[in-house]
Amino acid sequence: MEKPYLVTCTAPVNIAVIKYWGKRNEELILPINSSLSVTLHQDQLKTTTTVATSRSFKEDRIWLNGKEEDITHPRLQSCLREIRRLARKRHNDGDATSTELTGLSQKVHICSVNNFPTAAGLASSAAGFACLVYSLAQAFGVEGELSGVARQGSGSACRSMYGGFVQWIMGNQEDGKDSLAQQVEPESHWPELRILVLVASAERKPVGSTSGMQTSVQTSCLLKHRAESVVPHRMEEMIKAVRGRDFAAFAELTMKDSNQFHATCLDTYPPIFYLNRVSQQVIHLVHRYNRHYGETRVAYSFDAGPNAVIFTLQQHVPEFVHFIQHFFPPETNGEDFIKGLPVKSAAVSEQLKQSVGLEPMPKGISYIISTKAGPGPRVVKDPSLHLLSPDGFPKL
Amino acid sequence: MEKPYLVTCTAPVNIAVIKYWGKRNEELILPINSSLSVTLHQDQLKTTTTVATSRSFKEDRIWLNGKEEDITHPRLQSCLREIRRLARKRHNDGDATSTELTGLSQKVHICSVNNFPTAAGLASSAAGFACLVYSLAQAFGVEGELSGVARQGSGSACRSMYGGFVQWIMGNQEDGKDSLAQQVEPESHWPELRILVLVASAERKPVGSTSGMQTSVQTSCLLKHRAESVVPHRMEEMIKAVRGRDFAAFAELTMKDSNQFHATCLDTYPPIFYLNRVSQQVIHLVHRYNRHYGETRVAYSFDAGPNAVIFTLQQHVPEFVHFIQHFFPPETNGEDFIKGLPVKSAAVSEQLKQSVGLEPMPKGISYIISTKAGPGPRVVKDPSLHLLSPDGFPKL
Repeated sequence: MEKPYLVTCTAPVNIAVIKYWGKRNEELILPINSSLSVTLHQDQLKTTTTVATSRSFKEDRIWLNGKEEDITHPRLQSCLREIRRLARKRHNDGDATSTELTGLSQKVHICSVNNFPTAAGLASSAAGFACLVYSLAQAFGVEGELSGVARQGSGSACRSMYGGFVQWIMGNQEDGKDSLAQQVEPESHWPELRILVLVASAERKPVGSTSGMQTSVQTSCLLKHRAESVVPHRMEEMIKAVRGRDFAAFAELTMKDSNQFHATCLDTYPPIFYLNRVSQQVIHLVHRYNRHYGETRVAYSFDAGPNAVIFTLQQHVPEFVHFIQHFFPPETNGEDFIKGLPVKSAAVSEQLKQSVGLEPMPKGISYIISTKAGPGPRVVKDPSLHLLSPDGFPKL
Repeated sequence: MEKPYLVTCTAPVNIAVIKYWGKRNEELILPINSSLSVTLHQDQLKTTTTVATSRSFKEDRIWLNGKEEDITHPRLQSCLREIRRLARKRHNDGDATSTELTGLSQKVHICSVNNFPTAAGLASSAAGFACLVYSLAQAFGVEGELSGVARQGSGSACRSMYGGFVQWIMGNQEDGKDSLAQQVEPESHWPELRILVLVASAERKPVGSTSGMQTSVQTSCLLKHRAESVVPHRMEEMIKAVRGRDFAAFAELTMKDSNQFHATCLDTYPPIFYLNRVSQQVIHLVHRYNRHYGETRVAYSFDAGPNAVIFTLQQHVPEFVHFIQHFFPPETNGEDFIKGLPVKSAAVSEQLKQSVGLEPMPKGISYIISTKAGPGPRVVKDPSLHLLSPDGFPKL
């Protein structure tokens, strides 16, 4: 048996601050509006994927979080097909090395894990498909623009192909060739920016985003208006706020856009609710916190689930985290409540608590992940970190 | 002391099925879009108001639900001023009787009560101002179009000036003279239509509608689009559905418009939430009930609070009420849960319960008021029902 060629990569989660909701082409995954996101740091949240290629493999196979999944899934197939097509193109153009050429006709084994629970409701498909495409590209020796391939796995995955602040330009072409992600600023651009993921305990399983956005496109007249007439201007404003590191502008637009996305979900028929009472409490807390200080120090954003993603500046993190902890008393007051980047201890003044005027909601938040903006996908050099054993099958 | 002249009237509550949200003129209460409502029957929900006029009264005074209130409130003053202006006009035109002429310069005592708790969160200001204006008009001998006066007390009050199905035409004039209510069809037009008010126990006091809609007008771009580009067409559709007694069309448009109104609240900055988890459960229950039967048998509508107003046809009332009772088990299973028009007993099939697939939410709904469409304001002939004693002061 020929020894498989193994490559392992990691890719990040991203959180949109100008939201993507609705496709104009389901198959190519072309959006009805552009969007903009912040790539989260992989030290806290990442997908790791190992791709093995070997002449000995009889078929393509995939294992996700320890369980073999169906490789014929159309979106997986789109990514595999696209990467092989690019590899062939590179071959025909005479750019490929001999090793890579060998791989071209070989089958792949793919193994992928997240370092965070899927149940956390984070956009794991974005990190997952970004990592898949990046790893496959490494294995097949494909270089250059890959966000268009990742997009065909999961729309928002295209934004996880870059670090820092990333826009997904919707494009105009029917074939989607111009619907690509682009870095607006690298993660080093705004080092003070901090991100807190407040993991809420969901009361019920929400509507999936694929079917949800389909229904929205079909039924919400507000979504159509948003996509055509609101988002283009907001994209410009958001890019300006990011470039100028204008936190107040960035924060307000982030909150308004999150709210507008959820408004279009409510305008969908039948309506879709992603915000539960915990989310609503977080929203009220953020606005009252900002009101108390007379400035916008903190922003929230919610995707298709009840978890809040908080944006703030480094200096406000300790107080705000303990503020959240006060209004969502955790089951145990242990250190387990705060994961990720260390958060210093801080007091929350009685004045602040009182000016908020809300009742604490015990156990509403399971835990907080403290993180920041981070880089795009990376190759893992250390061969001991491969998820597949030298024979190309899962280690576990 | 001269014996006061007493007149007592009643006026109904109305529920908008095309919602009013946002003023283009705060003082005159001119809306940014037209709206359409169903007037509820006064046997279940009404305001009663007695107006006394007397030469002996030194000043205008008002008692609401047993407590004296400030008569200098600008909206009360608007109504008093307008009615006196119309009375004077009628006098100058030579149409008034001598009794009415006498009253013109006299002060009024006003006493008003609701037959439902204010805490029920029903739009009591609409019934209240409609009743005030109707009673004052009787006392001062003013006849003809009065919805424009009621509108200046509380926007939606203009729709409570008529029975049945009522539109409030937004108008175009700056002085608001063409912003009036108009009956689309009388209550007798659709006798099978039934209305259930599901009174939810609110978790917190919601944002008032006056300040809420101000903020929405200032901050929600979706509201602007709704008012300009969505509502005009919906008004036509709704009038058509009402005229044709097309329940499915009426119901779907009612739900979509309620959802869109709440969507614009969420698009407001800071966002406004009127729907709590009980409201969300009602929404899910209605859609799943309809889905189970493969037709739209029931619709919901929510105003600026968590109570649901349900529209359905007579034949579906017993089952739907018991369906609600199953998913919101009341504190006591007594008859107190259902108030108003009698509701026959009915079984809810296991099949239906299972196809819904939701967990019951105990005590989410305090009680149900069963009612139907009803007539507009009425004069109460029986003098024993005056709320003021013959000397013009509250009986209690």
